[in-house]
Amino acid sequence: MKKVADDIYGYAYGSAEVAKSPVSMQELEDLKVSVGFTAEDEHYLQLVGDVLADQTEQIVLHWRSGIIAGIPNLARHSRTPEGEALPDYLAKSNLRFQQWILDTCMRPYDQDWINYQEEIALRHTSLKKNKIDGVRSTPYVPLRDIVAFIAVINETIKPYLAAKGHTASEVEKMHLAWCKSLQLQLALWARPYADCKEALNEW
Amino acid sequence: MKKVADDIYGYAYGSAEVAKSPVSMQELEDLKVSVGFTAEDEHYLQLVGDVLADQTEQIVLHWRSGIIAGIPNLARHSRTPEGEALPDYLAKSNLRFQQWILDTCMRPYDQDWINYQEEIALRHTSLKKNKIDGVRSTPYVPLRDIVAFIAVINETIKPYLAAKGHTASEVEKMHLAWCKSLQLQLALWARPYADCKEALNEW
Repeated sequence: MKKVADDIYGYAYGSAEVAKSPVSMQELEDLKVSVGFTAEDEHYLQLVGDVLADQTEQIVLHWRSGIIAGIPNLARHSRTPEGEALPDYLAKSNLRFQQWILDTCMRPYDQDWINYQEEIALRHTSLKKNKIDGVRSTPYVPLRDIVAFIAVINETIKPYLAAKGHTASEVEKMHLAWCKSLQLQLALWARPYADCKEALNEW
Repeated sequence: MKKVADDIYGYAYGSAEVAKSPVSMQELEDLKVSVGFTAEDEHYLQLVGDVLADQTEQIVLHWRSGIIAGIPNLARHSRTPEGEALPDYLAKSNLRFQQWILDTCMRPYDQDWINYQEEIALRHTSLKKNKIDGVRSTPYVPLRDIVAFIAVINETIKPYLAAKGHTASEVEKMHLAWCKSLQLQLALWARPYADCKEALNEW
């Protein structure tokens, strides 16, 4: 599997540390149908992976420094409760953010994948945020901010998809596959937020 | 305000029956920023409204009969628990679905609007689903199905946006504004699902 760096701190994809997701493979299949995710989308996501592979650093920099840093409401989740910068935390989570782009495009959507979707979700809730990196920051990222920021990610990814000379029609299909995958992942990330035994009112 | 019919059963937008949303106007403004919703998007949403106004029946028919009816997992929410059709329920909720398209595009995003977003959300949870129409159906629509189906709505709306001869660039901007609004609404709809005093594990 393609990785953005040899050593990605806290990146545990496929390892025994990652618990089995409470979401079943059947539920994942049902979600794919609800999202309209087809074999053609799988094909185009691979192409997205090829196209974005050498752009992930620039893309994450765009999202983090170009957008999130300018929105106090979002920027606070990578800072201390007093608002101080946490450069080490940011660097580590940025590298995982880069790898997530590749995982979105190139990983098979199998048991390991849904397990890691659940892990990603938990790391945004009070159950696991800050833990892996041992930092003091906001206790959780509200679900609504995750939902909202997907729109920004989908909007801003487009020029990067077009950066390698594909036709407008190919870029359109790549973008569609990307948007479907993100909505699918968003559905999975929402799970612990809706589970009252887990995240409590973290909307 | 433009309406798809003189009498829309159960449509209570702006009326005293609709409770005040627990979401504040400040939270809405923050969400707009997180979604990247600008004055340009507001402008293009008005244009979307003009473009879709005489197509809402066809669009909702496309979603309901062309897509949802073919996905048992989604179709069940408009049927009895035993799987029987409820044509009157479907017709009523289809008309409200049509009006929602216009409200998305043409209503100001003010207090009445967030109040009605909360009402729409509740009508998908066990707190209010089936109540207005007095039907026996599934107790709630799982949050994940709502998240997932937004991807389908966003994909399938595009040809309707292009149906009135606007340029590709205009259609692109209309589509972007539409997608941002839907993600904003989705963030609002997720609220009662994440609130453990309201919907309990309706993921």
